[in-house]
Amino acid sequence: MVLGVDVGGTKVAVAAVDGVSVRDSIQRPTVLGSTAALLDGLEEAVRLLVGRVGQPTAIGVGVPSQIEYSTGTVETSVNIPLTGVPLRAELGRRFGLPVVVDNDANCAALAEAHILGEDDLVMLTLGTGVGGGVVIGGMTFRGAHGLGAELGHFTLNADGPPCPGNCPNRGCVEAYCSGQALERDATEMAADRPDSRLAGCMGADGRVSGHELVGAAEAGDPDAVLIFENFARMLGIALAGYVNVFEPDRVAIGGGLSRASGLFLDRAMQEAQARALPALWRRTTIALAEGGAQAGVIGAAVLAAQELASDTARSETPATERAE
Amino acid sequence: MVLGVDVGGTKVAVAAVDGVSVRDSIQRPTVLGSTAALLDGLEEAVRLLVGRVGQPTAIGVGVPSQIEYSTGTVETSVNIPLTGVPLRAELGRRFGLPVVVDNDANCAALAEAHILGEDDLVMLTLGTGVGGGVVIGGMTFRGAHGLGAELGHFTLNADGPPCPGNCPNRGCVEAYCSGQALERDATEMAADRPDSRLAGCMGADGRVSGHELVGAAEAGDPDAVLIFENFARMLGIALAGYVNVFEPDRVAIGGGLSRASGLFLDRAMQEAQARALPALWRRTTIALAEGGAQAGVIGAAVLAAQELASDTARSETPATERAE
Repeated sequence: MVLGVDVGGTKVAVAAVDGVSVRDSIQRPTVLGSTAALLDGLEEAVRLLVGRVGQPTAIGVGVPSQIEYSTGTVETSVNIPLTGVPLRAELGRRFGLPVVVDNDANCAALAEAHILGEDDLVMLTLGTGVGGGVVIGGMTFRGAHGLGAELGHFTLNADGPPCPGNCPNRGCVEAYCSGQALERDATEMAADRPDSRLAGCMGADGRVSGHELVGAAEAGDPDAVLIFENFARMLGIALAGYVNVFEPDRVAIGGGLSRASGLFLDRAMQEAQARALPALWRRTTIALAEGGAQAGVIGAAVLAAQELASDTARSETPATERAE
Repeated sequence: MVLGVDVGGTKVAVAAVDGVSVRDSIQRPTVLGSTAALLDGLEEAVRLLVGRVGQPTAIGVGVPSQIEYSTGTVETSVNIPLTGVPLRAELGRRFGLPVVVDNDANCAALAEAHILGEDDLVMLTLGTGVGGGVVIGGMTFRGAHGLGAELGHFTLNADGPPCPGNCPNRGCVEAYCSGQALERDATEMAADRPDSRLAGCMGADGRVSGHELVGAAEAGDPDAVLIFENFARMLGIALAGYVNVFEPDRVAIGGGLSRASGLFLDRAMQEAQARALPALWRRTTIALAEGGAQAGVIGAAVLAAQELASDTARSETPATERAE
């Protein structure tokens, strides 16, 4: 039995996981005051669950941050105070157990692949930003140092709008297919058309929220529908690119925005099909993610179990073979 | 000792390779009349070299075609008559040896990675079209069925020009960064400006060749320089995308157009640096490919040696472990 930990911007979830099944779990609010307080809160949550389920063999932790996987150090972390923290070493010291640390989108992708039994899968998480995770041959793909698979930051229009994320590019996937991009478009549309429904949705901060935009589109407001039409078209272009580059068995679409998929998924599929290389498109399934709210903890636990198995395999290999 | 075979549109090269060193090699013109004639010519070239160097343990073959790697069958082949041919099985039957078959850009990427000792490498071949190869952990990445890593077919401009290749997309990398795209731009520029130097370069077919365009740009013709400025900018945008998605140790730029890199590489690097995620950009080297003309045969041979080693490893694993 391994533990999976999913550290989000608002809550920390800890689960005891067997394969891809959650045996027991708890949630605590994320303590954001300082790095030490965040880690203390995480440790307390883990010890609480360990008290109920017993000692695990390893712990996997997913964080909403860029990780240099080879060292387990956090490269950048925008929403929680972990930038520069040698997180794997710090948590290993606190728990005295093998700990692995990965980006949360990578964990979600790994969970999705293992839940569905797919070896080659691309997962796109559409939320405030666009996160990506890629599984190749059942293992997480991370690039040379663990910072890769930044699927939200491939350019779709060379002269498009600036990326709203922590990225110097313009016109990349996140500049079109994220919650922040939708709010930008809705707010601009509302400012341009003061008599429109969207203008009436503007908050005290002078912005139209993604929630209001989704409501307007679902009610058939033509401005809101047009914004989702553009979102869907750009998402389709991105999907065609991922299919051509990764040729996965499946592309899974998750994240908070995927709950509004009725507003964009069919149109996105149509655009993707028109642009992807036909031989690759035929072999790929594009569908909403099925992992649900527990994907983060399941993926972190699957990763911990994989690392444990590969460490065991290495230590059982005769030294002469290891030297090769 | 293994043999590497590189089947091009004009010539077939066969080499006896040890590691990444070519011991002996021959070249023959590619016979394009029919599939049978092509395969007979290939067989004859292989037998000729075998007569000189002795029997190899395996043969690797690179072809300018889309391959379903799991079966070794050619999915599509535009320049040589192999579409639909079960090439691995056919050549295995002819030679009575283990044969592997892969796309030529994949072979070039594998050669480049092994020559340089880089585990994680992206190779972009800029020629008539844009080919791609990706090496992850020292092994060729191919997607779920061997059709992936189509790096030339990710969109850079949603409403860009139609792809000149065998691809339904518009505005993809190949629509900007290929020899065909350069010829299209030069021909359009010449038609728009009948008194220009480029108009004077127009051939009897009403087109300006890539060769003429390169000459004009190297002589400082402002129209030609402008075409390469745009080429370089779009190449830079593509490079930033590959760095963000694959986070390789190195991106190698090869293919015939790389010989004119003085016209575009510095500008492309500048654009890529401005757009790539900084933490990833810092860890990546972008450079011209070093594999040279023999990269195709070396990569095919490295692949054959890898497959032979993994088959041997599998057959030496006790059956109980294999069943897992």
